[in-house]
Amino acid sequence: MIEYRNLKVALLGGGSVGAQVADLLLTHGDELASRAGAGLELIGVAVRNADAVRTPEIPQHLITTDAEALIHGADIVVELMGGLEPARTLILQAINSGADVITANKALLATHGTELFDAAEQVGAQLYYEAAVAGAIPIIRPLRDSLAGDRVTRILGIVNGTTNYILDRMDTTGDSLEEALAVATELGYAEADPTADIGGYDAAQKAAILASLAFHTTVPLDAVYREGITEVTLEQVAAARKAGYVVKLLAICERIEIEGKPGEYGVSARVHPALVPLGHPLAAVHGGNNAVFVQAEAAGDLMFYGAGAGGIQTASAVLGDLVSAARRHVIGGPGVAESTHANLPMLPISSVITRFQITLSVIDEPGVLAEVATLFAAHGVSVEAVSQSVAVGTDDTDATATLVIVTHQATEASLSATVEALEQTAVVASVVSVLRVEGL
Amino acid sequence: MIEYRNLKVALLGGGSVGAQVADLLLTHGDELASRAGAGLELIGVAVRNADAVRTPEIPQHLITTDAEALIHGADIVVELMGGLEPARTLILQAINSGADVITANKALLATHGTELFDAAEQVGAQLYYEAAVAGAIPIIRPLRDSLAGDRVTRILGIVNGTTNYILDRMDTTGDSLEEALAVATELGYAEADPTADIGGYDAAQKAAILASLAFHTTVPLDAVYREGITEVTLEQVAAARKAGYVVKLLAICERIEIEGKPGEYGVSARVHPALVPLGHPLAAVHGGNNAVFVQAEAAGDLMFYGAGAGGIQTASAVLGDLVSAARRHVIGGPGVAESTHANLPMLPISSVITRFQITLSVIDEPGVLAEVATLFAAHGVSVEAVSQSVAVGTDDTDATATLVIVTHQATEASLSATVEALEQTAVVASVVSVLRVEGL
Repeated sequence: MIEYRNLKVALLGGGSVGAQVADLLLTHGDELASRAGAGLELIGVAVRNADAVRTPEIPQHLITTDAEALIHGADIVVELMGGLEPARTLILQAINSGADVITANKALLATHGTELFDAAEQVGAQLYYEAAVAGAIPIIRPLRDSLAGDRVTRILGIVNGTTNYILDRMDTTGDSLEEALAVATELGYAEADPTADIGGYDAAQKAAILASLAFHTTVPLDAVYREGITEVTLEQVAAARKAGYVVKLLAICERIEIEGKPGEYGVSARVHPALVPLGHPLAAVHGGNNAVFVQAEAAGDLMFYGAGAGGIQTASAVLGDLVSAARRHVIGGPGVAESTHANLPMLPISSVITRFQITLSVIDEPGVLAEVATLFAAHGVSVEAVSQSVAVGTDDTDATATLVIVTHQATEASLSATVEALEQTAVVASVVSVLRVEGL
Repeated sequence: MIEYRNLKVALLGGGSVGAQVADLLLTHGDELASRAGAGLELIGVAVRNADAVRTPEIPQHLITTDAEALIHGADIVVELMGGLEPARTLILQAINSGADVITANKALLATHGTELFDAAEQVGAQLYYEAAVAGAIPIIRPLRDSLAGDRVTRILGIVNGTTNYILDRMDTTGDSLEEALAVATELGYAEADPTADIGGYDAAQKAAILASLAFHTTVPLDAVYREGITEVTLEQVAAARKAGYVVKLLAICERIEIEGKPGEYGVSARVHPALVPLGHPLAAVHGGNNAVFVQAEAAGDLMFYGAGAGGIQTASAVLGDLVSAARRHVIGGPGVAESTHANLPMLPISSVITRFQITLSVIDEPGVLAEVATLFAAHGVSVEAVSQSVAVGTDDTDATATLVIVTHQATEASLSATVEALEQTAVVASVVSVLRVEGL
């Protein structure tokens, strides 16, 4: 029997992830010790309600409501409370007491990440957060370490399981958004108040974290452009499939050359529904699963796929960080700071260049297509494909047709101008929808 | 301008990967330094032929044919020569001189890995090898760090791009194995002598590396069961698709409970063609791409996808390791040894439990299906599905039918006994093929 030095681990939060982490620490202790080169002794679990029923159960003698006292004397603090406060204050206390910190708190990192990383750097502590994005899928470590010698150019992420479940269900069963959301709530995929998920807020937090890391740049949450899925209709989803696409809520992080400044780059981060071609690996991500598609200059296309957040899956990521933190303690020396050495400027959504699918309801008469095409050309937007569906109308004079136009790459700004002009054109009855196309 | 300490990097090998690594080190130096916290100074590239033309070009003053002299005084040695010797001797010299070593040499790791890891542990050096498996796809670091707190139960890997290209082409174009191989050779996917790829030897080396790492166990190369794709026919591929499968060459690493010893586990590693259900994420891995599907107790199913080996992609993985090694130098302290603390026993292929698809040519007469089914049952192999194709024959008396049987999970041993018995049964004209089914 090898004797290991014991590291004291304090857990803040006894919810579904916390209870799983506690259980794995208690039941797999020997195995974890042999991997970490140090024992991981759970010294306590700080909770709000000491009497709550937890699954798996946490031994009562480990439960405490005094988080501050628990942190005092811990080598590693694991924060799984969620929310901004008191999580922020407690993490700063832990860092200042010399502990390494592991957190799954995406809201906190997206909001106060810079403050926390700076605090950690000052005392040589390390902040781990693999569990904050895409549950058990290793994405932070690959971006931080494996791709550290490469240049990431773009990330397309399905990082919210709830919205992926809803969109996938609309696509496969023909449910409306409301019906699919009801099922997601019933199955526990969606919370009672689904705003954070379907509004794209959760995905925007993850986009801020991924963009910061991938581009070595501070990306504030409010610089992330955000649209949720609330406006996505069953008709759009059905029309997309017919045209060879699926609708996904994507978190997109890009390094973009700044207009008029060759060789100078900025960062864009955005969350919105997008059409993804059926042959793209992201199109095959079904149900509540997550996937992060990464493009890098040398590595080419990579994808990381797996279950999204879930108590036990997130616990796996937390334990991976715990073993890493323990190994670092065994080695000694300060942590490696999160680097924002590039500090590229944040670009507005209008700088983004992508493709668009525009669906128009038009008067069904000769010359309309030519008029519409001329208008696109006048705004510098090049059309890749047009399809026209069967005309419908009560009589010949007000017959309308549906035009579906897919553009080549265009800026958001020129597309917006095109749409504005379309809306003022007599032959266009209405602009039915504008969707971005990603992954082509 | 921040001043960094310089780390001296020696490169062994100036082939397609080596030339890319040298080029990236020379052109991205400042960026790499800011990420690593230390300058990475390329002090030389050891090659066999100093006059060879390289793409990208390596400055002539860096070229040397004296690898031993180059290693002397290097902080980090990058071995990209391939082959067992002199790579093994040079890596041992580098380790013993106190350098960290980065290698992409799968053959060497699969054959002499234990010796190299032991040598590194003794002096506190680190051996990095992300580039040895699946090119730029981060798989070593996720297994080693991200999943360090979890228990991996199974790995299914498409880890050889050549064979995936060939099988994918047979499936999508109807080319024969020979035709597909000819195209692969023409396009540079296959080498002049394709034995290492199509014989499954390359995949077996990667299976040994992955199984060692995932199960914390020494997995010798000769304990990996190996079948290549040379016996795969176009008929099998076409029949598989009809039945809802694609044929893939898989590297499969499993932790298996030892028969008769509840709670005791062994390790199996094997490489062979297998049927993969069309809905499985691995079925969508086309062309020369690689993907590694990992199942872990807590994390559930994960998949890592990307381009297989290629000069620039592999260089990305090498540079990621270089930055990690440099960060470790900045922090100081010994490396973390590769742990084989579990050291589970290796199990023979006969212990493996999987599903099988057996294709039989049978006499077309009443009672045949019952006789065949009875024979499966007698050997403890449970049948999940049977399909019978249209009978063909020159006249009524020697009419034959094709039976395709998919079994529930069965051991290789019981399946072998079943096949042997089938071959001696009068109603069975021949056992046309036996394929394992994975990923169900």
